[in-house]
Amino acid sequence: MNNQIEIQLSAKRKEKPSFSDLKFGKTYTDHMFIMDYSREKGWYDPRIVPYQPITLDPAATIFHYGQTIFEGLKAYKNENEEVFLFRPEENFKRLNRSSVRLCIPEVDEDLALEALVKLVSIDRDWVPDVKGTSLYIRPFTISTEPNLDVTPSQKYRFMIIMSPVGAFYKEGMNPVKIAVESEYVRAVRGGTGNAKTAGNYAAAMLVQEKASAAGYSQVLWLDGKENKYIEEVGSMNVFFKINGEVVTPELSGSILEGITRKSVIELLKHWGVPVSERRISMEEVYEAHQNGQLEEAFGTGTAAVISPIGELFWNGEIISINDNKTGELSLKIYNTLTGIQIGKEDDPFGWRVKVE
Amino acid sequence: MNNQIEIQLSAKRKEKPSFSDLKFGKTYTDHMFIMDYSREKGWYDPRIVPYQPITLDPAATIFHYGQTIFEGLKAYKNENEEVFLFRPEENFKRLNRSSVRLCIPEVDEDLALEALVKLVSIDRDWVPDVKGTSLYIRPFTISTEPNLDVTPSQKYRFMIIMSPVGAFYKEGMNPVKIAVESEYVRAVRGGTGNAKTAGNYAAAMLVQEKASAAGYSQVLWLDGKENKYIEEVGSMNVFFKINGEVVTPELSGSILEGITRKSVIELLKHWGVPVSERRISMEEVYEAHQNGQLEEAFGTGTAAVISPIGELFWNGEIISINDNKTGELSLKIYNTLTGIQIGKEDDPFGWRVKVE
Repeated sequence: MNNQIEIQLSAKRKEKPSFSDLKFGKTYTDHMFIMDYSREKGWYDPRIVPYQPITLDPAATIFHYGQTIFEGLKAYKNENEEVFLFRPEENFKRLNRSSVRLCIPEVDEDLALEALVKLVSIDRDWVPDVKGTSLYIRPFTISTEPNLDVTPSQKYRFMIIMSPVGAFYKEGMNPVKIAVESEYVRAVRGGTGNAKTAGNYAAAMLVQEKASAAGYSQVLWLDGKENKYIEEVGSMNVFFKINGEVVTPELSGSILEGITRKSVIELLKHWGVPVSERRISMEEVYEAHQNGQLEEAFGTGTAAVISPIGELFWNGEIISINDNKTGELSLKIYNTLTGIQIGKEDDPFGWRVKVE
Repeated sequence: MNNQIEIQLSAKRKEKPSFSDLKFGKTYTDHMFIMDYSREKGWYDPRIVPYQPITLDPAATIFHYGQTIFEGLKAYKNENEEVFLFRPEENFKRLNRSSVRLCIPEVDEDLALEALVKLVSIDRDWVPDVKGTSLYIRPFTISTEPNLDVTPSQKYRFMIIMSPVGAFYKEGMNPVKIAVESEYVRAVRGGTGNAKTAGNYAAAMLVQEKASAAGYSQVLWLDGKENKYIEEVGSMNVFFKINGEVVTPELSGSILEGITRKSVIELLKHWGVPVSERRISMEEVYEAHQNGQLEEAFGTGTAAVISPIGELFWNGEIISINDNKTGELSLKIYNTLTGIQIGKEDDPFGWRVKVE
C-alpha cells in the first residue's frame, strides 16, 4: 500500500460560524480525510479532499447490516494559538478494537494519526478559540459494497470529518438529573457494547427520548443480564465516590472503554485517591445514599469531560447527590483534565499532542 | 401529503443476468422506489425512478448512529407468467413496528404496498421464472440528516430496491449443520432483537464468520440473559418437532417476528398438528435427542422458506437430527408454502397478492 497522503485543497473556503455561538455537530470544516479499502488492494488512496457528499449504491451494506464503527475526539486551541489533541493514539487503538468486533479491516494507526494531524493542521483556522470551545473530530469507517447477502463487506471507506463545537458548560457546571432505566438495555455481555458502533446508539435513542420527555437529561443503563449492575450514563462512563473511594464499573465487555474514563482512573491513582473498577449495583449506590456515604457522582466522556450527577431517579425514588451541587473531586478532575487538554496545566503523562 | 406516486421510467434498460445462474443480492432491477421525510413535511415525494446511487452528507446520522430498519420479501413468477407476492402487508406492519423501536417515523402501509406493487409491475420482466428463483425485494429506511448529535434524525429516506435471486435449493433440500453459540449473543430482552435493524446483523457477523470457518453453515443463538434458551438460527426463526409436538421460541422481545414463522404456525394449526410458542432450552433439545424424541428441526425465513437442520453442535457434543435427512413434516411445510407462494396450491388463508 502507498501510505503517501495526497492533498487536494478546497478552491474556496466556507464562511465560518460565530465561534461564540456554536451548535454541536452542525457545521463542518473545509476538508475531510478519506481512505478506501478493497479485499484485493487493502487500504488505498489516503487523501485529504474538500468536504463533500459521498455517493453510494442503495444496496451498500452500511444501509442494511450496519457494519460501521466510529471515534470521537477533540482539538483545543488556547490563547497562544497553540492547538492540541488529547491522547489521539488511544482513539485509533479503540477504533481498531471496534473494527475487529464488527469484521471491519483495521487501519494503520500511525497513518490514521498522521492523517488526523495533517487534516487539523490544514483546517487549523476552524479550531475555535473561545473559552470551552473545541473542534470535534469524527473518524469513522463504513462498509460500502453493494451486497444484500449478510456477510462482511469486501469494501470499506474510512473517513475523518470535523466540526467546531461550543462550550459544554456555558454557564458553569450544572449537575444533571439522570433516570435509571430498568426495562430497556443498551447492550449485553457477548454483544457489541464495548465497540463504538452505530447499533448501540440506535438502540439507546428511544429510551433517551422517553427520559428527556420526563425531564431527565440522560439515562443510566443497567446490565442486560440481571438489570442490576450499573453500566453507563447515556453515552458516558460513570463514577461514584462512596465513603472516600471512587468506583467505576469494570470493563465487562458490554461498556465502552472510555478514554476520559481511563484518564480519570490514571489521574486519581497519580493523586493517591482510592479508585476501583468493579461491579457496582444500584442497590449499593442506594444504600450508600441512605447511609450518607454517597459523596459524588459524575459521567465522563469526550463531550463534557466531566458531567456531575445531581440526582438519580430509580424505582420511584429520588437519590439526591451532594445537594445537587458539583462535588469537590469532580471539579478538581475537570479542571485538571481540561487544563492539560488546553495546555494550561503540566502534562506529566504525555497526553497532549501538539499540532504544528 | 401528496400520496400520488410519480413515475420516471429509465431511458435505457440494463441487460438482465441469466436467470439460471443468479447470485443473491448482486444485481438490481431497472427501477427503485424513493420517498423522503422531513419533520416539517412528513413523508413526501413518493416516486419510482431509475435505479441509481444515492448521495449523502458524510455526517448523515445513518453512518454514525445506525437509525435504519429494513424488510425482505419476494415476488414469484410461475409458468403461466403470473407474479405473486406473499403476505406483503405483514412486511409493512413489521417495518412500522421496527421503526417505532428505532425512533423512525412510520410509513403509510397502504401507500408502501401500492408503491411495491407498482414497482414490481414496472420491473415485472426482472421476476425470474426458473424453478425456485424469485425477485428479492428490500424496503428500507435510513436517517439522512447531517448531525453528529446523538438524537433522532429529522430527515429520513424510505426506499425499495429489488434483486433477482437464484433457487435456494438447487440440488434438493440439504439439512444444514448448526453451531450453538454460548459466548456471543445476538440480542437481549430490552434491546433491539425484535426490530429488523442493521445493528442486529452487524453484531452477528463475527460469530457467523467463526462458525463458517469451523464448517457450520449457521449459528444457533441463545438468550442474552442466561445463555440457555433458544432464540434464532442465523437470521431465521427455529422450530423443533419433539415427540409429535412442534415447538418454537416465544416472541420474547429479543427475537424477530418472522412472517414465515407466523405462516408455519398458522399452517400447522390448520392441519391440526400440535404447535406451541414457548421457552425452549438447549438442555430440553438435548434431552429429547437422548430420549429419541427429537424428530425434526428446521429454520424458517424468507430466503430458504424452510431450512432443515441435520446437526447441532453444542458444548462439544453433536446432536444429529433425523439421521441428517429432511423430516417429513419439514418437507410438507416447505412444499405447501412454496406451492402457495407460486400459485400452485390453494390459498385458503388469502396470503397471495397477485401483481397485474
